[in-house]
Amino acid sequence: MTTSTRIVLASRPAGAPTAENFRTETADLPEVGDGQVLLRVLYLSLDPYMRGRMSDAESYAEPVALDDVMCGGTVAEVVESRSDALPVGSVVLSYSGWQTHEVVDAASVRRLDPERAPISTALGVLGMPGFTAYAGMTVIGQPKEGETVVVAAASGPVGSAVGQFAKIKGARAVGIAGGPEKCAYLIDELGFDAAVDHRADDFRKQLAAATPDGIDVYFENVGGAVARAVLPRLNTYARVPVCGLIAQYNDTQAPEGPDRLPGFFTRVLTKSLTVRGFIQNEFVRDHYKNFQREVSEWVADGRFRYREDVVEGLENAPDAFFGLLEGRNFGKLVVKVADRD
Amino acid sequence: MTTSTRIVLASRPAGAPTAENFRTETADLPEVGDGQVLLRVLYLSLDPYMRGRMSDAESYAEPVALDDVMCGGTVAEVVESRSDALPVGSVVLSYSGWQTHEVVDAASVRRLDPERAPISTALGVLGMPGFTAYAGMTVIGQPKEGETVVVAAASGPVGSAVGQFAKIKGARAVGIAGGPEKCAYLIDELGFDAAVDHRADDFRKQLAAATPDGIDVYFENVGGAVARAVLPRLNTYARVPVCGLIAQYNDTQAPEGPDRLPGFFTRVLTKSLTVRGFIQNEFVRDHYKNFQREVSEWVADGRFRYREDVVEGLENAPDAFFGLLEGRNFGKLVVKVADRD
Repeated sequence: MTTSTRIVLASRPAGAPTAENFRTETADLPEVGDGQVLLRVLYLSLDPYMRGRMSDAESYAEPVALDDVMCGGTVAEVVESRSDALPVGSVVLSYSGWQTHEVVDAASVRRLDPERAPISTALGVLGMPGFTAYAGMTVIGQPKEGETVVVAAASGPVGSAVGQFAKIKGARAVGIAGGPEKCAYLIDELGFDAAVDHRADDFRKQLAAATPDGIDVYFENVGGAVARAVLPRLNTYARVPVCGLIAQYNDTQAPEGPDRLPGFFTRVLTKSLTVRGFIQNEFVRDHYKNFQREVSEWVADGRFRYREDVVEGLENAPDAFFGLLEGRNFGKLVVKVADRD
Repeated sequence: MTTSTRIVLASRPAGAPTAENFRTETADLPEVGDGQVLLRVLYLSLDPYMRGRMSDAESYAEPVALDDVMCGGTVAEVVESRSDALPVGSVVLSYSGWQTHEVVDAASVRRLDPERAPISTALGVLGMPGFTAYAGMTVIGQPKEGETVVVAAASGPVGSAVGQFAKIKGARAVGIAGGPEKCAYLIDELGFDAAVDHRADDFRKQLAAATPDGIDVYFENVGGAVARAVLPRLNTYARVPVCGLIAQYNDTQAPEGPDRLPGFFTRVLTKSLTVRGFIQNEFVRDHYKNFQREVSEWVADGRFRYREDVVEGLENAPDAFFGLLEGRNFGKLVVKVADRD
């Protein structure tokens, strides 16, 4: 019998998650049934949304149940098959979570073409984070030539795609990141027009200097102090796609006052702002094919770059995840769970 | 020489405006030049946005300058004409403000057809407030059959049009108003499905009972405590057109905490909300003709009702305006400045 080593949710965090919220187990897997395959996970994606799944607060998706394996996108290899569609050796995108093996219906996974792009990109630039950026910008942000686009966590997989998408549309791309190394990367490697260090004492001054004509699109994926600095700089008719709020995920109660909500609504009114929350699933039907076609092409011809931060070993997933919530990763964070056969 | 009696902005209010912020003057008018007409104002519209024009905080429009006549939409009669297009006796929509007479270019006003509808409706159901409701609902709110639409200040000119528009589209219309008389009017006269009294002690309970399936469109024109009660009831993909925040216009600083802004963004994200500020001007080009055609028809066939609150005499405009900011009016507030000849 095959077993899977898995990291399960042992308890729900109050505030920042800790090692105690996780537990490692070995579970027996069922027989591979007709039309099913046994997967061996190669890469596990770590993403900010997972913090939400650890809590049972109402959200757009069900929380992970206690004692269940932590959820997560994965790239896996078929090591046993009872499906003609997926012979042994096939590489697939699955949602196996924080574990080493899983038995799934062949129809529930998507086969990847390892010749087309490195397989780990299915978790990043050509996967959910890349599509989040693409859909949010295509449908909501709609950057126009000469406009200014600001995105935070800009060296991460969503932010870096947002900025490069802005450049392709002829807009000015301004990235916010933590520390000089990431800021240099935005300019030198990704071609952003300006980079602003949110850890710098003069962050607000840097932001003002980088956005002399105000801000037309703020792609919101962090919230918190960065958002407070950005919102006053929004121009009339600015668009704010909201896909994440990583700076707030560990908050256990509303911060101290004053209450900034009434002032925010005044700004929405006087500037005719559009603020739109979204989860990428909403746009899959209408935009996923275009995303795959366009971004694959941009990656292939070098117009679109990406960076991965690869952590070795499933046992290091919790620590890597804590680092993600603190911005310690540099690029798309993935855990390499196993080598391909 | 003709003179105009006019109410000018004497000083900018700190908080709620008072009589000291206004001053009544008599001004000499220039000769009527070629292509110009002399107008005698019949009706002056009083609207919440005027509070914004009294302040010099940054907004979507320039403030009224100190010592200038207070701005405002007006229906006026041509009493002297040097324009073939507008003979004496013509009735026009002008932006003459809080005064009795004005000399204007004939091209700057729009002629009304007094046979088509009572002339004062050009300031209400068939004017700016009606168009605000129509455009906000057509472009942003987009109510669908079976959805729930909530609007506050629901017996006012914008709110009453929003609710009736919702009904025409097959949605459930829930109005929020101050006091049992206005609430009864919403149900009995305007055909709302439910009315909620925001002055009642059990306002939140009433609101919950009136919106058992949550809220799909919240047409925001008040802000403040009403908004705080409504926002938690928004459904996934709900739309929030924001056209006014009358409950906040007199605020001089951000209210005490906790800071509700981070929690609001969490809601925007987890519910995929759309929040969109707007001023009706933005939609004139694409939607004004349809508005005039559709709403005129609805008013004519009785599907669309309206109520006016007429105050006699320009000298009573300031008091009536203070009452408007406190919700003391009942229906579209207009000042009858003069009888038609």
